[in-house]
Amino acid sequence: MIISTDRQQRPDDFRRERVTTLGRDQCPFCPGREALTPPEILAYRPGGSGSNGPGWDLRVVPNRFPALRVEGTLERHGEGMFDRMSGIGAHEVIIETPEHDRTMAVMSEAEIERVLWACRERVLDLRRDGRLRHVLLFKNHGAAAGATLSHTHSQLIAMPMVPDFVREEIDGARRHFALKERCVFCDIVAQELADGRRVVQDNADMVAVAPFAPRFAFETWVLPKRHGARFEDVPRPEIESLARLLKSTLLRLDRALEVPPYNLIIHTAPFDEGLASLYHWHVEILPKITRVAGFEWGTGFHVNPTPPEDAAQVLRGVKL
Amino acid sequence: MIISTDRQQRPDDFRRERVTTLGRDQCPFCPGREALTPPEILAYRPGGSGSNGPGWDLRVVPNRFPALRVEGTLERHGEGMFDRMSGIGAHEVIIETPEHDRTMAVMSEAEIERVLWACRERVLDLRRDGRLRHVLLFKNHGAAAGATLSHTHSQLIAMPMVPDFVREEIDGARRHFALKERCVFCDIVAQELADGRRVVQDNADMVAVAPFAPRFAFETWVLPKRHGARFEDVPRPEIESLARLLKSTLLRLDRALEVPPYNLIIHTAPFDEGLASLYHWHVEILPKITRVAGFEWGTGFHVNPTPPEDAAQVLRGVKL
Repeated sequence: MIISTDRQQRPDDFRRERVTTLGRDQCPFCPGREALTPPEILAYRPGGSGSNGPGWDLRVVPNRFPALRVEGTLERHGEGMFDRMSGIGAHEVIIETPEHDRTMAVMSEAEIERVLWACRERVLDLRRDGRLRHVLLFKNHGAAAGATLSHTHSQLIAMPMVPDFVREEIDGARRHFALKERCVFCDIVAQELADGRRVVQDNADMVAVAPFAPRFAFETWVLPKRHGARFEDVPRPEIESLARLLKSTLLRLDRALEVPPYNLIIHTAPFDEGLASLYHWHVEILPKITRVAGFEWGTGFHVNPTPPEDAAQVLRGVKL
Repeated sequence: MIISTDRQQRPDDFRRERVTTLGRDQCPFCPGREALTPPEILAYRPGGSGSNGPGWDLRVVPNRFPALRVEGTLERHGEGMFDRMSGIGAHEVIIETPEHDRTMAVMSEAEIERVLWACRERVLDLRRDGRLRHVLLFKNHGAAAGATLSHTHSQLIAMPMVPDFVREEIDGARRHFALKERCVFCDIVAQELADGRRVVQDNADMVAVAPFAPRFAFETWVLPKRHGARFEDVPRPEIESLARLLKSTLLRLDRALEVPPYNLIIHTAPFDEGLASLYHWHVEILPKITRVAGFEWGTGFHVNPTPPEDAAQVLRGVKL
């Protein structure tokens, strides 16, 4: 858990978070307003235009209200029985396109591939910082999924520790590996492809499935067929296959569920652990179509009204 | 994770959950409309009125759209590498008062005690069902915290398994006990009372604190000072002390944060495990004043703008 007072701007700011969404005439992610973001870390500028001005296809900038900062040294200390660690890390925003109204589902496959490639570049760069142990890559689409700006973007948080949800997933994979000497995700891919009832779509390198125990209605995972622990180590052809399958999966969700809000998370192995054979990177798409009941927020315990076999059938039936 | 198709009423119901809140003229929890709920399981009727009619102070009824049902046998089976268990259990609603507009913060201490006593009675009853292993007691206050009816109520879900978040909490307590031969919650109570910076208020039996690593801004825990693993085994005087401290804590939150939505969860030990010395029941209050960003929903990873010392200071400063 991160305590980030940077996100609390005034002393009485805790009363309510401001939830006004900026319109396109004030959008800090639109071309011509580059000065409204911190200076760019990475940009794709096909015409060779200068930094922090227009002419880009994609920009990566630091989050204006970061949960973590790169500056400072990593310190750990005890406070009685408790442990504190300084909030070292990085929080970046990937502005996926100059066009304000575009969503990932309607972007071209080449545009989606560009976003994935930028994510990969940033992770490879951050991996060189010895203080950092994990990068979380995620996208909040729609206000109900936590997006505060409507211009399509993804985010990246690099941390000096491995978050609990990653640790738990790794522990589960480790137990499976200890028992079977096989990757649990490879087993899932094989069983789902053979069974077929929960498969949404697949291509040469990737498969989209409704997972066996989905936390959210229409939760969909995209898994690489070939084993690999880290997203950032994947070769270009698999990134292309991922872009193609992501586009069609997001289109299916948009058409079946009337453009739902969703969170998309890339699960990839932490940097410094010997996880090559037991972890398997993948993408999780979590639509937010039902109100999340309170006990789920407090407890991590989920109730889902839609069996995954029904969800997969609906999504397979969407005309693309 | 529970797949509950009972909660999906029509085949196309997955498109959006209905979020209309029923007004008081249609409220199924108001006196005179007892026929709109399933028959009552427990009621406090001081005048000795008959079941399922008016004249009650408190009613417990099955949830109309239960996540789990009592009927049937508990079955477990494998499906390839996956595991399925039938959805045996109970999902009940505690209607806390006949008055539509009352909230727990404005209820009298005696009324709150009555609610806690009813919860205790229900848990003691469900504990006799050998299939069940855990009871989750919780309250969603306000639409943003997941409440679908505004008439104040709590809920109870009894399950044939121990949910992950309870298992993880127990595992942490077990590790601490293995190292120190002391209950981790007893150590927290002792350290917080000695330190004072995160204490909101205490009385003879209970202490309200802002926990050291709060997931949500103004998250507040109420812990019994005396060790005990199970809420339902607590003697009457401690239930009275809990009612008093809950009322003042909820009033402080209401006044400091302008009547925030919140989730309140009673954490208590599973039924059948030897946890007497290492687990310690307690109450967690999770205000929902900031929008929950998407990556927190998908990942369980939280960013909190308010340090617990600041939250405790604000709450201590509220005039009651």
